[in-house]
Amino acid sequence: MLETVRWITAEGKVLAGFEEGLALLPGKLRIIDQTKLPKELVYLELDDIDEIVAAIQRLSVRGAPAIGCAAALGLAAAAQHVDADFEAKVEILADQLAASRPTAVNLFWALERCLSHLRRCDKNHLQELLREALAILEEDIQMCQSIGKHGAPLIEEGMGILTHCNAGALATGDFGTALSPMYVAHEAGRKFTVYSDETRPLNQGSRLTAWELHQSGVDVVTICDNMAAQVMKEGKIDLVIVGSDRIAANGDAANKIGTYGVAVLAKHHGIPFYVAAPTSTLDASLAHGGLIPIEIRDAAEVGAAEGVRVYNPAFDVTPSELIAGIITENGLHKPPYNFG
Amino acid sequence: MLETVRWITAEGKVLAGFEEGLALLPGKLRIIDQTKLPKELVYLELDDIDEIVAAIQRLSVRGAPAIGCAAALGLAAAAQHVDADFEAKVEILADQLAASRPTAVNLFWALERCLSHLRRCDKNHLQELLREALAILEEDIQMCQSIGKHGAPLIEEGMGILTHCNAGALATGDFGTALSPMYVAHEAGRKFTVYSDETRPLNQGSRLTAWELHQSGVDVVTICDNMAAQVMKEGKIDLVIVGSDRIAANGDAANKIGTYGVAVLAKHHGIPFYVAAPTSTLDASLAHGGLIPIEIRDAAEVGAAEGVRVYNPAFDVTPSELIAGIITENGLHKPPYNFG
Repeated sequence: MLETVRWITAEGKVLAGFEEGLALLPGKLRIIDQTKLPKELVYLELDDIDEIVAAIQRLSVRGAPAIGCAAALGLAAAAQHVDADFEAKVEILADQLAASRPTAVNLFWALERCLSHLRRCDKNHLQELLREALAILEEDIQMCQSIGKHGAPLIEEGMGILTHCNAGALATGDFGTALSPMYVAHEAGRKFTVYSDETRPLNQGSRLTAWELHQSGVDVVTICDNMAAQVMKEGKIDLVIVGSDRIAANGDAANKIGTYGVAVLAKHHGIPFYVAAPTSTLDASLAHGGLIPIEIRDAAEVGAAEGVRVYNPAFDVTPSELIAGIITENGLHKPPYNFG
Repeated sequence: MLETVRWITAEGKVLAGFEEGLALLPGKLRIIDQTKLPKELVYLELDDIDEIVAAIQRLSVRGAPAIGCAAALGLAAAAQHVDADFEAKVEILADQLAASRPTAVNLFWALERCLSHLRRCDKNHLQELLREALAILEEDIQMCQSIGKHGAPLIEEGMGILTHCNAGALATGDFGTALSPMYVAHEAGRKFTVYSDETRPLNQGSRLTAWELHQSGVDVVTICDNMAAQVMKEGKIDLVIVGSDRIAANGDAANKIGTYGVAVLAKHHGIPFYVAAPTSTLDASLAHGGLIPIEIRDAAEVGAAEGVRVYNPAFDVTPSELIAGIITENGLHKPPYNFG
């Protein structure tokens, strides 16, 4: 697996989950620099707070679960340089990290969890901080593997699977969410082909999803977003699995722009459309997807002729009636959905 | 209007249609160099056969009707340098032009028409050749204006219209096909907004359609292909008009990849989907669209991560049951279609 976010010890030992002992310290946060993908696979080893903040800001690490893990491990890495007044100074470091991506819910959640843990324990602060950060990573890995386990039975030998954007290993601490069932099925020896939408305007599909599946030996084909209908018509697609950024109580799911269109096309062609996401994505406070705000992003991302207006919604909402099932770490949920 | 393809006299007079007199000679083929768009509006004035062939090959002029006009006028321009043995040497020039785009039906059709005319007339060969070429251009202009006239009533004040790829002034001698109704409605003073799909992988929508509509003062918004579903869901689209490269007897219409997906999305949202094309696009020899071959183009056009496969169909076929009407220069055809 890609090991997108890890703790690396001074001896160069890469740690995924929780492990006892002071041996874990000193160490650093290690992340794949996703700005270099797909051309180069470069790892960054960081323990300076400014460098960690900069890495999150420039999207060297992206994807909600991966950002949460990186922030927690990054806090522990930077905290090693705190000499006195530990708790107060760690709170300042956490504030710096929290300001790096102002709308990233997992970032705030992971930092707050680390700080709460710190407030509760009375000794060996640094080690406790790292222990909590590694626990967050370990839970993320477990979450990915459970989603994969619950979703993998959907994938049969010889299938064609369409996915959109990147909800893979690069977005999490392990197997990803939407891609996790594919990794699990691949490891079980099943052969299938993944069609990966390019995902304009930022090309997370062609830059990240196709790259990481190919790295792992999964058969993958890059297509432009507007080719999805044609590959469905040609009978190449048996299954669609996508991720989600936020799911309302009734099962309406927000995800990267273009996901809703794929769901409509899947319905027209009689192809089941699944969403895979951790339960942390479920937002019981929202009765339906119409309450999920759609972020409108900068026109420059799209690239238009001079003077021409651009409309660039970053997300869309797929209504639950188009969703055949929602795969979480707890199981495969079938309609009607009730996450309230 | 953009005057994509024109005859320009030695005095610099730009001629659209047919005009009497030797005053038209000497002169040159003038085309917009579409490889420079949307950054620069550059005109090429050509009378050298090698330069004309190169311009067609590198897509300085593109779009079936525009290529036909450019080939005919280009033949007349190059023929001015023929001193003796006129007819035989013009046949050789025509062969050179025909080889520039081996699958362009309009190119062969226009050249053959010029040569036939030449064979029939017994004097003043050069002027007759130019006369026929200008007649081809004039008919193209009339075709565009008729399509515009028949399609414009579909466009009401305040509408949002989606189009895909470029079937506009840049693809023809005048108003274009799919865009012609928009130009006619705009000239009649109606206000509306056109949403122009980017049209991956070659971006004819963002590079050409958005640019030419903006140049003409039509309100236009560039979106990525995968945003079409969302703008429809938001109620921004009342009408879809696209072009076509080939229409089967039953009304199934081949067009740039992504068109079929737009048609499915339009149906889901209850939005009428129209095709605009000259009758020369109708192919009575094909009973249905399944008989239209789909060209698969080079992976390099899409741009994928190293080692990753690409599927790059250049066209798709929209079944006639998704088409509310087909607009030709003869009128607005409603289903059931029977072009056999």
